[in-house]
Amino acid sequence: MQSNLPHLQSIFTADCVIFGFSEGELKVLLIERNEYPFKEWWGLPGFFVEHNETIDDAVKRILLEHTGLKGIYMEQLYTFGDLQRHPQGRIITVAYYAMLRLEAIGNNLKPSTDYVRKAQWHPLNHLPDLAFDHKNIIEKSIEKIRRKVSHSPIAFELLPEKFTLTQLQQLYEAIWDKKLDKRNFRKKMLKYNILKELDEKQKGVSYRAAKLYKFDKRKYNKIFKNELNFSK
Amino acid sequence: MQSNLPHLQSIFTADCVIFGFSEGELKVLLIERNEYPFKEWWGLPGFFVEHNETIDDAVKRILLEHTGLKGIYMEQLYTFGDLQRHPQGRIITVAYYAMLRLEAIGNNLKPSTDYVRKAQWHPLNHLPDLAFDHKNIIEKSIEKIRRKVSHSPIAFELLPEKFTLTQLQQLYEAIWDKKLDKRNFRKKMLKYNILKELDEKQKGVSYRAAKLYKFDKRKYNKIFKNELNFSK
Repeated sequence: MQSNLPHLQSIFTADCVIFGFSEGELKVLLIERNEYPFKEWWGLPGFFVEHNETIDDAVKRILLEHTGLKGIYMEQLYTFGDLQRHPQGRIITVAYYAMLRLEAIGNNLKPSTDYVRKAQWHPLNHLPDLAFDHKNIIEKSIEKIRRKVSHSPIAFELLPEKFTLTQLQQLYEAIWDKKLDKRNFRKKMLKYNILKELDEKQKGVSYRAAKLYKFDKRKYNKIFKNELNFSK
Repeated sequence: MQSNLPHLQSIFTADCVIFGFSEGELKVLLIERNEYPFKEWWGLPGFFVEHNETIDDAVKRILLEHTGLKGIYMEQLYTFGDLQRHPQGRIITVAYYAMLRLEAIGNNLKPSTDYVRKAQWHPLNHLPDLAFDHKNIIEKSIEKIRRKVSHSPIAFELLPEKFTLTQLQQLYEAIWDKKLDKRNFRKKMLKYNILKELDEKQKGVSYRAAKLYKFDKRKYNKIFKNELNFSK
């Protein structure tokens, strides 16, 4: 069929939007491209989907080749097909996203393809100019995360297992891109009773060490169970 | 770029998953195809995305040509790219879905392309054999709707503006594909206080006419407002 319908053929790519949280900031993983005509452009890890691979396989392969990361569970976000999104013609791209505990990964990023010069975390609030429509793709991902944090505990996937209330507040501030009142935030958060206060404090900080907390998924599920869910 | 990379070129299509609810059943809009080699196969309204149209435009055009429906707000569901999904080679498809008030549309379906013999609503529980991976696409849509009804009022988009509690229960039973206990369902539903009881009864029924209700969106938003939403 491919050969009969050349006027219908498109190039299809996959892009990875990987979020992490560290030093009080939401970060996104970018690559610096190395190939003409995109040399030195920053963009999302992303490349062609080959004929002999599924989209799920392609996105894993691309993330590995571009950043060295593997074993990351990515979810499909959206497929972008605006006519002007790519300077080289009709290229449709599907974006996948993931939220990572940065502490487990850090800066140990190793591209293994000549198309990529380096991979690096960038604060969401200070992104360089990005290739193609990648800024738009990142914005769409943030919107998705905002909708999701409101009715699922995904925000906690970005925090270390043990965290301070300040870290938690910074994370919500980063997601919503606004300052929150400290007293109100803590009152609201503690009221839900979804945090387990640990008998432990921060280590290795020069200022007064804060209490550490853990997320209590069991309690969360009990409280935020979906009332209009008749599946059980 | 297209011409330099023939081994990367794919065919890209868009499919429409349109749900409606009538006679106590959840229905999906199917077309009977008319072209060799798919003559007389049933499937979702779906066809090629052309080079000069966005995906959003393509999906609206395809729905119009295949069924005569227009002005329907469809949301992107998922992009499917399994290697075996289509017998004619690598064809990637993006599915869009919508939930309609069937009373406003009924059976007034008019295909305007030679590729389609007819368009027809089919009960979800009695689907014919479907072309390609369309059964899988419909299942994925139902899963999406199940997740969504738990934290948003989309189920009410399928009901007439004024409905009986029996209709509401039938709808939830259809979505969850299970029988629900009448007393428990009514107790739970009325307890939320999101229904407005009308001073009106069903008309034109041969059995005892039941009370009519309306969905109270303002109250719903108040009760089910997302507690972990710090946007306000």
